[in-house]
Amino acid sequence: MKKILVLLFFITTTITGFTQSDSIFIREIYDEALEKGEAYENLRSLCKDIGSRITGSAEAEMAIKWGEKLLHSYGFDKVYLQEIKVPHWERGTKEAAWIINEKGATFKLDILALGGSVGTNGLIEGEVIQVENIDALKKLKKEQVHGKIVFLTQAFDQKQIMTGKAYGACFPIRGQGANEAGKLGAKAVVIRSLSSTTDHFPHTGMMSYEEGINKIPGAAMSTENADLLTKWLKNGKVVLKMEMDCKTFPDVISYNVIGEIKGKDEKIISWGGHLDSWDVGEGAHDDGAGVVHSIEALRILKVLNYQPNHTLRCVLFMNEENGNMGGKSYAKLAKEKNEEHICAIESDRGGFLPIGFDIDGSIEQVKMINEFKNLLSNFELYRFNKGFGGVDIRPLKEYYPNMIQLGMTINSQVYFNYHHTNNDIFENVNKRELELGAAAMATMIYLMDKNLK
Amino acid sequence: MKKILVLLFFITTTITGFTQSDSIFIREIYDEALEKGEAYENLRSLCKDIGSRITGSAEAEMAIKWGEKLLHSYGFDKVYLQEIKVPHWERGTKEAAWIINEKGATFKLDILALGGSVGTNGLIEGEVIQVENIDALKKLKKEQVHGKIVFLTQAFDQKQIMTGKAYGACFPIRGQGANEAGKLGAKAVVIRSLSSTTDHFPHTGMMSYEEGINKIPGAAMSTENADLLTKWLKNGKVVLKMEMDCKTFPDVISYNVIGEIKGKDEKIISWGGHLDSWDVGEGAHDDGAGVVHSIEALRILKVLNYQPNHTLRCVLFMNEENGNMGGKSYAKLAKEKNEEHICAIESDRGGFLPIGFDIDGSIEQVKMINEFKNLLSNFELYRFNKGFGGVDIRPLKEYYPNMIQLGMTINSQVYFNYHHTNNDIFENVNKRELELGAAAMATMIYLMDKNLK
Repeated sequence: MKKILVLLFFITTTITGFTQSDSIFIREIYDEALEKGEAYENLRSLCKDIGSRITGSAEAEMAIKWGEKLLHSYGFDKVYLQEIKVPHWERGTKEAAWIINEKGATFKLDILALGGSVGTNGLIEGEVIQVENIDALKKLKKEQVHGKIVFLTQAFDQKQIMTGKAYGACFPIRGQGANEAGKLGAKAVVIRSLSSTTDHFPHTGMMSYEEGINKIPGAAMSTENADLLTKWLKNGKVVLKMEMDCKTFPDVISYNVIGEIKGKDEKIISWGGHLDSWDVGEGAHDDGAGVVHSIEALRILKVLNYQPNHTLRCVLFMNEENGNMGGKSYAKLAKEKNEEHICAIESDRGGFLPIGFDIDGSIEQVKMINEFKNLLSNFELYRFNKGFGGVDIRPLKEYYPNMIQLGMTINSQVYFNYHHTNNDIFENVNKRELELGAAAMATMIYLMDKNLK
Repeated sequence: MKKILVLLFFITTTITGFTQSDSIFIREIYDEALEKGEAYENLRSLCKDIGSRITGSAEAEMAIKWGEKLLHSYGFDKVYLQEIKVPHWERGTKEAAWIINEKGATFKLDILALGGSVGTNGLIEGEVIQVENIDALKKLKKEQVHGKIVFLTQAFDQKQIMTGKAYGACFPIRGQGANEAGKLGAKAVVIRSLSSTTDHFPHTGMMSYEEGINKIPGAAMSTENADLLTKWLKNGKVVLKMEMDCKTFPDVISYNVIGEIKGKDEKIISWGGHLDSWDVGEGAHDDGAGVVHSIEALRILKVLNYQPNHTLRCVLFMNEENGNMGGKSYAKLAKEKNEEHICAIESDRGGFLPIGFDIDGSIEQVKMINEFKNLLSNFELYRFNKGFGGVDIRPLKEYYPNMIQLGMTINSQVYFNYHHTNNDIFENVNKRELELGAAAMATMIYLMDKNLK
């Protein structure tokens, strides 16, 4: 028994990668975030002084200036813009849809055009054909769909504990619905919003067209409306009329916004959130929270006078929502400049309670992160599983396959109630949860800087 | 090395207290809760059809009938009321306060009488003396305080990661403020609300008087108002005028509401939340959530046709908020009836995301619970620390010192924004988070039933 205890002690001590001074420093990070934190006020400012900020919009330009000014105000070693080319899609001014049943009853739907959709070119109408998902749609014949409006109804699988998985499963009805319906001659596609809940908010989000395809318009209706339309369809034919004048314009110039603290060597740890948002609500959780988490993490490390081993770089990525040109360009430029990237971290899962980090890395890297588990459990961070880092940082991995990437894991239960809706506003973010997210980011940056060679 | 691996394997298998069938059954619990759950609708009904339900009120009587009817509707083996004697305090109809500065500027405060407070017997007034906390108050002399109104300002320590600790530290200004101020001849005590945030909602809650003391009224103002009053006091004297006609009436008869499924033996696992609430808002998080968690846990186990080893008993406790006569009487009656209680579980920390269970038990019991850690991490439950079970179940421990008690641990970051306020309403509870809480309760009951002898 004594032998086992000795062995267990040996195993315990060798797998523990932190020291007493780490523990003290991380406590200081949390104290700063929770007592003197600026993340919440910064989020208020981004949401209220700038507003929603889709790539290519005046608001996105204003957000770039906002971010640059804020990073400058904190006196980091280097603040700069990184020029990139981005898509430019606008919702336009017309967006309406109605359903009419055989008795002539009419109901106005809550809809939002999907990002990237073409407009309808005036008021269009078609009989509604309800299809559950992409697989079922692909099995239909042209004569069943031609001239109709396809209504895709796949709902979130509520059994999924992590709502991101439910979202991922429904993603094809939004991303590919217009392609598959278009191939069968449909006039348009309308989808049940990708949402965890039943309410009256439609959820927008990216869709794209396959090369050379007949482009048909795509829109999302609220989950309440989708339930109603399903009910109507049980009682007979329903016609849907809709008009949208959304449009894609030529690409424009935009920017990633970057702030740095120099390290003892040239190796780079970068992290960020995305500065763009959809053009509805205020982009508070998606991804205002990630933007202010990221800025606050660098501010805290500077205020605490931390002298990093590596260059610490906070990146506010442009265009995550509809093209990811910020992330792709950042990675390409990094490689062109021969930068040495060892770690990247992303916050793009909202401003709710942080619970850990997903790890996109080797078995050894997953093990390395788990060595901090006992330390981090003092700050209520528990979850360190193999997983996905984030859309913005993923392109770096193509050029730096051995780097470790981390995605901050946030309580996902409520996130998809707000995601891409007019309800994603500052008032729906809690101050302490946001601050804990910033502290968790700063903590992980610190641990990676200390432990990665 | 091989020897170490063999040894590690041995250690791993012997400390793992669950089987494949446990894993499957728990998955069924979650599926039922998330797909066919009734907790959310039950909470809506309790909040909207009954409303807030302070002990001794008509609403509390209605809530007892509501609970009894609901338990009956699920066809449990036994549903019954347990008669208890409870205190009866009423807020009355008058509750107002104003502050007036030296220039005559007047501001109406948001206040709530503290539970158990005496009334003011008409409009009273006094100069405000600001004191940070109970220790500072105890150091003052009678001539400094006599005839004045004591204003206690202790704020939550935002550095505490778990907000319950910040609440605990501030608790004395609410619980004992009137006693200490009264001893020094104050006319009344007003406190900064015990809240994590700064807003306009005052938070009520229990206070009590020491035997034979001069009883002075106690009230809480919103954190925004407390900040304003502090600001005013920096510029000169401030007079506070207030009127409250709250009153304590003779004790009345009330009931705990109990539902049971019989087990193979007579040993008892009981769990619950408290059916009473404060008389403001709707008692949605505190503790409507715990009530519906508890009922739903038993419903799920019945629907899944689980045949328990021990008697499974769901208890809706009355009077947790101002006397705990439900919990105390339940324990006393259990002992009188020679019942054998082996485990008790409580949900009284809101309807937010469940993260684990606090364990009030021996080192061995803490270890036993942690044997389920890997299993429960599949359901995003991570936290199994030594801690407190709950106010309602605590009295059982006096009669059954060896029993294990568990308190469901819930994300605490937002809880104290709503606690004991008019803002603790159904709309502020998320459906999925509530359902996950019910599933976590059912899961822990199942594991205890299977593993406790």
